[in-house]
Amino acid sequence: MDKIKDEIERYLMELCVFGHTPQDGVTRLPFTKEARAAAEYLAGKMQELGLAVHVDASGAVIGRLEGAGPDTIIIGSHYDTVENGGKYDGIAGVVCGLSLIRMIKEEYGNSFPYSIEVMATNDEEGARFSGGFFSSKAMLGLWTMEELRKNKDANGISIYDAMKAFGMEPEKLPEAKRDLSEIRAFLEIHIEQGPVLEKSNKEIGIVRAIVGMRRKIVKIYGRADHAGTTPMDMRDDAMEKAARIIAGVGDAARNYLNSVATVGCIKAVPNAINTIASYVEFSLDIRSADQDNLNALERDIQSLITQSASHYEIQETVHIDPVEMDQKLAELLAKTAEDCGYSWMKLDSGAGHDSLITGPAMATAMVFVPSKGGRSHCPQEYTDTEYLKKAVKLVYQAVKQLS
Amino acid sequence: MDKIKDEIERYLMELCVFGHTPQDGVTRLPFTKEARAAAEYLAGKMQELGLAVHVDASGAVIGRLEGAGPDTIIIGSHYDTVENGGKYDGIAGVVCGLSLIRMIKEEYGNSFPYSIEVMATNDEEGARFSGGFFSSKAMLGLWTMEELRKNKDANGISIYDAMKAFGMEPEKLPEAKRDLSEIRAFLEIHIEQGPVLEKSNKEIGIVRAIVGMRRKIVKIYGRADHAGTTPMDMRDDAMEKAARIIAGVGDAARNYLNSVATVGCIKAVPNAINTIASYVEFSLDIRSADQDNLNALERDIQSLITQSASHYEIQETVHIDPVEMDQKLAELLAKTAEDCGYSWMKLDSGAGHDSLITGPAMATAMVFVPSKGGRSHCPQEYTDTEYLKKAVKLVYQAVKQLS
Repeated sequence: MDKIKDEIERYLMELCVFGHTPQDGVTRLPFTKEARAAAEYLAGKMQELGLAVHVDASGAVIGRLEGAGPDTIIIGSHYDTVENGGKYDGIAGVVCGLSLIRMIKEEYGNSFPYSIEVMATNDEEGARFSGGFFSSKAMLGLWTMEELRKNKDANGISIYDAMKAFGMEPEKLPEAKRDLSEIRAFLEIHIEQGPVLEKSNKEIGIVRAIVGMRRKIVKIYGRADHAGTTPMDMRDDAMEKAARIIAGVGDAARNYLNSVATVGCIKAVPNAINTIASYVEFSLDIRSADQDNLNALERDIQSLITQSASHYEIQETVHIDPVEMDQKLAELLAKTAEDCGYSWMKLDSGAGHDSLITGPAMATAMVFVPSKGGRSHCPQEYTDTEYLKKAVKLVYQAVKQLS
Repeated sequence: MDKIKDEIERYLMELCVFGHTPQDGVTRLPFTKEARAAAEYLAGKMQELGLAVHVDASGAVIGRLEGAGPDTIIIGSHYDTVENGGKYDGIAGVVCGLSLIRMIKEEYGNSFPYSIEVMATNDEEGARFSGGFFSSKAMLGLWTMEELRKNKDANGISIYDAMKAFGMEPEKLPEAKRDLSEIRAFLEIHIEQGPVLEKSNKEIGIVRAIVGMRRKIVKIYGRADHAGTTPMDMRDDAMEKAARIIAGVGDAARNYLNSVATVGCIKAVPNAINTIASYVEFSLDIRSADQDNLNALERDIQSLITQSASHYEIQETVHIDPVEMDQKLAELLAKTAEDCGYSWMKLDSGAGHDSLITGPAMATAMVFVPSKGGRSHCPQEYTDTEYLKKAVKLVYQAVKQLS
């Protein structure tokens, strides 16, 4: 069975060249020459495997093995990366798909009851343009031309113009929309990007749900006064108020299962050692796989703000509800993992994935593999290919059960 | 008596021209042409008043009225400002001194039992070089040549080189040292720079003590992890720990009389909305007029840090102990204020002044006047000259009592 491991390792090694950074990371942003090189590489490998290759209007590279029945199973993940990201995020799931489709083809030729597709999606990360999930949203017809024109990168280039400059036709994006009635399942293998599997000593994670998210910018107003001459009872200290809120955010999250809340960014004005802060702004990232918990946690943090500050503003920048994975597929994967003798657990995905988009539209399931030290989006990102091999074997067996 | 008010207003109006900023503030940094213009103006006014004028080796402008006895009373404050500061901080005390010495001369000629000096000190603020208190420390012989060479401004120019370029001789600085046995008292009139007198509806403040100060940079270390994929119980969040400390700093200070503690600066790394902070650094400014309270508050905040963070560093940047003003002089001023029918109160100075330096070496007292809205170090800084007039009359009467 080391053929799987060997081919996965070779694919990953050859793919990380496209966008390799001096820090040994990978930068493969959408509609760049690095993305084109990776897409061409993947199309080449799909051709070698004897698949029908097609690049859809969103830039997704799709290799299809025609089957005996009318329905299709898609094994998908993305081939773009964040800036100076790792060698596994997204692309690991794509190469697992290549291994898996090779095995199906070798065993069944064109007689498998489903057509199988490996789908390497484009711009899932949103690292160049805001939003991301480009191919998965295109697959569902969720983009408008206006959005393509309005959504711009740091240089002011819109998705629309970037596609044009890349030789693609944005007007044809609606052609990427799929007939959902033909799709039996969307399956995604992905690195966990967190520490749970490693700390729990599990080889495989079956994703129960992908978290919903609220992102906010919280602005606390106070009054700038001299830090030495203003008595404590005559102050309106924006920093003290902000600190009370931030100190309570973690405690609020710990009250709810499967929920996290984080303050990552902070800015104080005037930010001087001897002046009381007149203004403090901080970010709030709230996530939960449970809709009720997400709402309740959001409410609790809102009360915390109301109780601690009299003059504040809250600006919501992201509002995504949690998406549960297909329960039957998840159960099938769990049973198969058990049968294969793999150590496994159910867990939620704290990060967004293409499966977050496909989940509400088609039967979707995700398989996670451990990330060393929970690290991701950095050159240190690492997953033992032994785990990837097991994920391939697991999904292979599960797909066979589907038929 | 409106002669006092008129001359104070004229002096202030004429002096604020030297370093007037487009925002209607004043920038008069040491060893600049603005400082020279103000010093020359003051020397000119002192000559007009018939005083013996002398610019000491630190750049202090001293006008002396010879008296009948061997001892000297100095009425001093500074003529430098912070960047874009106000029209009153420091200079108001100097012009009050000019009024007062005129009154003494008119009434006594050279027969007053003390010689009286108006001393306009240089670089009290430390706005160009760190430290400040340049003339008052020089008066006590507290500078070394090494310090003058090491202490540099933002452009890398040392005090030593700045003095040379200004036409002064740094090697002669020791000549500014005074024979303390000849000095009977150092009296400083200054704007409060805080809200206490105004809120308490008092015209005059008699300073009991100048606060001691501890300044620290607190560095809290955590671990950068994904804000979505890292469960709450697997985090080492530097932001949460820092927030717990900062939220407690104000409460700690409120436990002690005459004490304040402020966090004005904060910086988070990587400062990203979706990454747990690996590092948070913040400033700590602790002040108290009471030595025991200062020490206890410092200890309490230290425990707060120890309890909240496991991996931290604390770097102390300022360590000044409180200085009590001369009790007899303060009592004399209080009694005189009462006799004059002024509304007055005792209070502590939350900011540093030349009197902080002179306090341990000679009998020192300070008189505060209200700052509108407590504002200072900004163009909005304002003090009604009616209060300055009363401060002059008060010190005039007190000085007469001394004889």
